[in-house]
Amino acid sequence: MKPLVLTLVAALLAGTANAQTVATGDLGLVIERANGSVLLVDQSERAALARIEGLGDLSHASLVYSPDERFAYVFGRDGGLTKLDITTRQIVNRVLQSGNAIGGAISDDGRLVAVSNYDPGGVRVFDADTLEMVADIPTGGKTIGLVDAPGRRFVFTVWDTGETWIADFTTPEPMLTTIPGMGKNPYDALITGNGRTYITGLFGEDGLTALDLWDETPQPIRVLSDYGRGQQEMPVYKMPHLEGWALTGSEFVLPAVGHAQVLWVDADTLTETGRTATHGQPVFAMARPDGRQVWVNFAHPLNDTIQVIDTVSKEVIHQFKPGPAVLHMEFTPRGHEVWISVRDAGKVMVYDTRTFEKLREIEADSPSGIFFTARAHRTGL
Amino acid sequence: MKPLVLTLVAALLAGTANAQTVATGDLGLVIERANGSVLLVDQSERAALARIEGLGDLSHASLVYSPDERFAYVFGRDGGLTKLDITTRQIVNRVLQSGNAIGGAISDDGRLVAVSNYDPGGVRVFDADTLEMVADIPTGGKTIGLVDAPGRRFVFTVWDTGETWIADFTTPEPMLTTIPGMGKNPYDALITGNGRTYITGLFGEDGLTALDLWDETPQPIRVLSDYGRGQQEMPVYKMPHLEGWALTGSEFVLPAVGHAQVLWVDADTLTETGRTATHGQPVFAMARPDGRQVWVNFAHPLNDTIQVIDTVSKEVIHQFKPGPAVLHMEFTPRGHEVWISVRDAGKVMVYDTRTFEKLREIEADSPSGIFFTARAHRTGL
Repeated sequence: MKPLVLTLVAALLAGTANAQTVATGDLGLVIERANGSVLLVDQSERAALARIEGLGDLSHASLVYSPDERFAYVFGRDGGLTKLDITTRQIVNRVLQSGNAIGGAISDDGRLVAVSNYDPGGVRVFDADTLEMVADIPTGGKTIGLVDAPGRRFVFTVWDTGETWIADFTTPEPMLTTIPGMGKNPYDALITGNGRTYITGLFGEDGLTALDLWDETPQPIRVLSDYGRGQQEMPVYKMPHLEGWALTGSEFVLPAVGHAQVLWVDADTLTETGRTATHGQPVFAMARPDGRQVWVNFAHPLNDTIQVIDTVSKEVIHQFKPGPAVLHMEFTPRGHEVWISVRDAGKVMVYDTRTFEKLREIEADSPSGIFFTARAHRTGL
Repeated sequence: MKPLVLTLVAALLAGTANAQTVATGDLGLVIERANGSVLLVDQSERAALARIEGLGDLSHASLVYSPDERFAYVFGRDGGLTKLDITTRQIVNRVLQSGNAIGGAISDDGRLVAVSNYDPGGVRVFDADTLEMVADIPTGGKTIGLVDAPGRRFVFTVWDTGETWIADFTTPEPMLTTIPGMGKNPYDALITGNGRTYITGLFGEDGLTALDLWDETPQPIRVLSDYGRGQQEMPVYKMPHLEGWALTGSEFVLPAVGHAQVLWVDADTLTETGRTATHGQPVFAMARPDGRQVWVNFAHPLNDTIQVIDTVSKEVIHQFKPGPAVLHMEFTPRGHEVWISVRDAGKVMVYDTRTFEKLREIEADSPSGIFFTARAHRTGL
């Protein structure tokens, strides 16, 4: 028995040494939309590490990370909320929390995960450890633009009523504030990185609407009310994602709805400062983390192309075609590289953002959203 | 022997069971300045996990993290550069690279670590994997204010000559640019979070000097030239740390040198927008990550106190005494809590930044700098 016991002891010692702590700072997950799986990737190695399957309908999915960059909470289109452990590469919990969901958020302390639902409309809030529901907030309509805000708050907006709601979870029962008059049919929203300004895009009328969350009683502020698709009834091939709005120093960059343009808006005054003509209708307009470049992808049928805009000159400085169906981009946290999902090529491509050189292609199954763990440390992502 | 072996196996099994996986996203290191050790801490658990010893003279130490949040590079006062693995909680390499050093930086791609030296003056750059020296850049003087900038660059300034240097490592041999005329005796510097603006504080004359690193040929820009300690020869109890300068939306907050004030500066125009009288001479003036509050500590003998300033009203909204010798503060990445080193109490204290409630005290041996792993994802930290 003695050799066997010693072998066992050795195995345990090795296991203990290996099992303790896993560095997760440069990992990420790529949504594989066709098959309900996600791909665990390593930024430094520019490589896929593992595939995790069984996440349901990921045709319009997103995810957030726990503060320790260990757990991902994946929000599926089918109302599924799946908790993954990226250190063990396994699903640790999964609940089907509604019939049709549209994204989620995690509170600043990492204790609460909120999901925004179309059917039934509203927001449900879950304990991040157990996925037990801790609050159910019906809103009377399809709920969009759910974000976390500092001070254990969630902010979200109702398509049908044009109301924005603030749910404050610093007390055992959430305190709810409703702000009417945001505009007709808000379709998406964002919060700025400092958690101060919440901006909704409108489908039913021209312009956008902002809230100053530092105000004691935030009131709707109209933005670019002479711009939009409302009265012009432009064909809209794909609604742009507002999460992709970029803040570059003192300006926002905003993908126009129904126009082949990005719009520049002064972040303080919320007035327009310029427009840049683009290759097609933009879907994401994302700033490199240093704000010096904005990378833009486009709606079908021009979705094989990326344009890079210099934020000082506001001019396109580079254009290239990564391949068919460019769906998403994610920068490394300090911006030296960018990862791009090219769905119909079945690849994620990695580029140097300075030389524009392609550094790597990684096989992926219908890749869409790319989410690096550094998002754990940011508000609104 | 058999019972002993079984006991050993049982102990190992228990150890394994307890040794849950720990991801690195919410970890941190606290410098224990008296004994050359660092304390590994866990933000979510509000706890110390381990002490790592043998780092030499840490009386004025700082550190940076690798992009994967696995390795820390600790810059000691004695010229020691120590590489720690926080997953195994061990020193993996250590070089004594000069006689007297004053901080360092890591390149945006995580491949290069640079150290700023007093003696001999200059910057030495090391391979982040091996700690082999890859470049030695003598500058002809004491070198301060070393930061990383986007595009594999380091920026630093020479006390004796008033020059700022930019070292670009995108080529095998670094390309060096020297910018003279920054002012008399620059003593520290910072780079803004987007990597665009580099600002040096001056000891030998009034005011500060900025560079716009987005400019093709950056030129010195004088800032607050009617302010300073130069001509007034005020007693300066401790030079403020410029890393602590806070950017709150559209303003910088700057600890005044030799005055019981913090100064507010418009980030675009670099003109003064206000002053707030403080309890003493500020050392760090640090913005909560959302920019809504600035927390200030003070020079001896008033270093038992913290003041919290609201950035909208610019008024002190809270004041308290954590204890003797408050040396440093570090916010959790999304700002809901702050950790404070109270050296002579032998404690790190954790506070809720909204209620100001003390949440925890953690024993530490003469704690000074606190560094959370989220810094890995930020420029200039």
